[in-house]
Amino acid sequence: MLTVDDDRLQRAQESLTAHGLDGLLIGPGPDLRYLVGYQAIALERLTCLVIPATGNATLVVPQLEAPAAEASGAERLGVSIKPWAETDDPYALVADLLGGGTRVAVDDAMQARSLLRLAAALDTTPGLAGVVLNGLRRRKSPAEVAALQEAAAAIDAVHAAMGEWLLAGRTERAVAHDIAEAIRGRHETVDFVIVASGPNSASPHHEVSDRVIAAGDPVVVDIGGTTAAGYCSDSTRVYHVGEPARDYAEAYAVLMAAQEAGVNAAVVGAAAETVDAAARGVLADAGLGEFFIHRTGHGIGVETHEHPYLVAGNREPLQVGDAFSVEPGFYVPGRHGARIEDIVVCTESGPVRLNHTSRELHVLSR
Amino acid sequence: MLTVDDDRLQRAQESLTAHGLDGLLIGPGPDLRYLVGYQAIALERLTCLVIPATGNATLVVPQLEAPAAEASGAERLGVSIKPWAETDDPYALVADLLGGGTRVAVDDAMQARSLLRLAAALDTTPGLAGVVLNGLRRRKSPAEVAALQEAAAAIDAVHAAMGEWLLAGRTERAVAHDIAEAIRGRHETVDFVIVASGPNSASPHHEVSDRVIAAGDPVVVDIGGTTAAGYCSDSTRVYHVGEPARDYAEAYAVLMAAQEAGVNAAVVGAAAETVDAAARGVLADAGLGEFFIHRTGHGIGVETHEHPYLVAGNREPLQVGDAFSVEPGFYVPGRHGARIEDIVVCTESGPVRLNHTSRELHVLSR
Repeated sequence: MLTVDDDRLQRAQESLTAHGLDGLLIGPGPDLRYLVGYQAIALERLTCLVIPATGNATLVVPQLEAPAAEASGAERLGVSIKPWAETDDPYALVADLLGGGTRVAVDDAMQARSLLRLAAALDTTPGLAGVVLNGLRRRKSPAEVAALQEAAAAIDAVHAAMGEWLLAGRTERAVAHDIAEAIRGRHETVDFVIVASGPNSASPHHEVSDRVIAAGDPVVVDIGGTTAAGYCSDSTRVYHVGEPARDYAEAYAVLMAAQEAGVNAAVVGAAAETVDAAARGVLADAGLGEFFIHRTGHGIGVETHEHPYLVAGNREPLQVGDAFSVEPGFYVPGRHGARIEDIVVCTESGPVRLNHTSRELHVLSR
Repeated sequence: MLTVDDDRLQRAQESLTAHGLDGLLIGPGPDLRYLVGYQAIALERLTCLVIPATGNATLVVPQLEAPAAEASGAERLGVSIKPWAETDDPYALVADLLGGGTRVAVDDAMQARSLLRLAAALDTTPGLAGVVLNGLRRRKSPAEVAALQEAAAAIDAVHAAMGEWLLAGRTERAVAHDIAEAIRGRHETVDFVIVASGPNSASPHHEVSDRVIAAGDPVVVDIGGTTAAGYCSDSTRVYHVGEPARDYAEAYAVLMAAQEAGVNAAVVGAAAETVDAAARGVLADAGLGEFFIHRTGHGIGVETHEHPYLVAGNREPLQVGDAFSVEPGFYVPGRHGARIEDIVVCTESGPVRLNHTSRELHVLSR
């Protein structure tokens, strides 16, 4: 059962009103899951939660999907379910439910096929509901922090057993297959499995290949899934087949310090970009700055990537309940790379890591 | 490797020009996979294929994703890859690539976060690229028909082994888990697994539950995945634990005839809705019309659901190369239901089924 706090719709209504909007239109995707716990499939038929500024929200669903919408428990939150038949016009139905309101925003993930038809039916250009919902979603409640902690423990357990699968002589793909099975055993879905060995570790978004893992390889393993409660895990650890060369070990030690500095900078009130600057500074001071080619982190919750983003230029202050990755890396083209990633929650008493496996380079004996 | 015919971009350019457009903007999703074979992840950072009316297309990608874009082989089709850095404005970059053109259409699945920012950068309201691409995508080339045939054979093999997993005393969920493993063994991804037993068979979009399958149950199994070539499978068969009651067996015989009639109506030049009418007529004549509560089918290709839709009101004529499901059913609320589904391709010599397992009710002995 998905974790849904009871006050989310009310908070969304307060915020949309404060933003001068008449309503929000939310299609299948993370915002819908977050608000009412309905994990709808994005099909060509319109599914849309209509949230007016006041009064109850209505979930417009294809007739076929009505049983699934009812099973989601959305009605428990005061949402009416309004099925439409194969020959009805659901866009006109949404316009009716807004009672003439045209200052609307749509969820950031809404598909063009729905958005442009809704815009035509309402004769307006919608805004992005992210301006309302990102602020809500980023402030995790205690129940959400608990759900993220549970997700982190699930992925930690997979990293802890990595030695069972990650062996020299196997391909990245074969290892990734076994990791995916292990993630599936502790999550509802497998979201991604990166196994980047040897020179592939120099590409931050390498996924898997048929490369055979060999003695002397560093192997970056970045994995995550979504739990039954609907919250995501994401953690990266680096393994090494046999002892690393001295230059790699030295760079890795700098990376550990950079990650630690990033985590420590994640204090309430600090600008999001200061976390990035803290981690980046440690790498730059050691001459590795040019090899850290991505931002330091991303928020996490019902999506693997959400607000806040820890990137230069983001001056938003960190808040109690923000949860995000801190994942600096270094990538030396054609040679090797590394990345260390934990999920961190901002609390009044400072940053709290949710991942607890060792961040040391894991040297594999075979 | 994804199956991509070389002429798709050129055909898209011819069609967009015929539609009076200056260009198409294609984000991550099925259209991008179809056109250039790039299976991009929809992240918050903009990935967008810019197809001008003339000249080469450009794939705008976040710098981090450049290696994945290059590995996709899109450049082989004459596409330039243009990476953007973390602090660039990718929306302005797209506007530049269109050279002042503002009559643009976006892919039907483009997310609002990209669409609304592109619309602002271009100062225009885009249309839906479906008007250009749906017509291209529905006419399957011989290579695509072969890829769909391969997908159909893969799912047929799973149905053929159903007796190994579908046993009285097991839950729908446990059976679905085993089916998913079998689909995964023959496809790149598992797209859906419906195991609807007993009264759950009366809900067309039931997925799975913890219900224990028992003697006397009908079990509707509707399953599909996507192959490594990027094409989808989708087939439904009905199993029955022990011999069915007479009324169920009679209704099932009518359903078989209805499905046969639907397939036979799928001739080139016939309106799409006539397939629906043919299947529906057989059920209605037997007094089962009120229990057939959905359309008869959907196109299939790089997506499980795409054009053409076989539904009342769709007067588009069927064309050589159209591929779609023919899947009538009956659903008696609270009691039981059934559905039979094959993928069918329209050819000059008539409709050709791609699925070949028996459509008879499969009676399980245990």
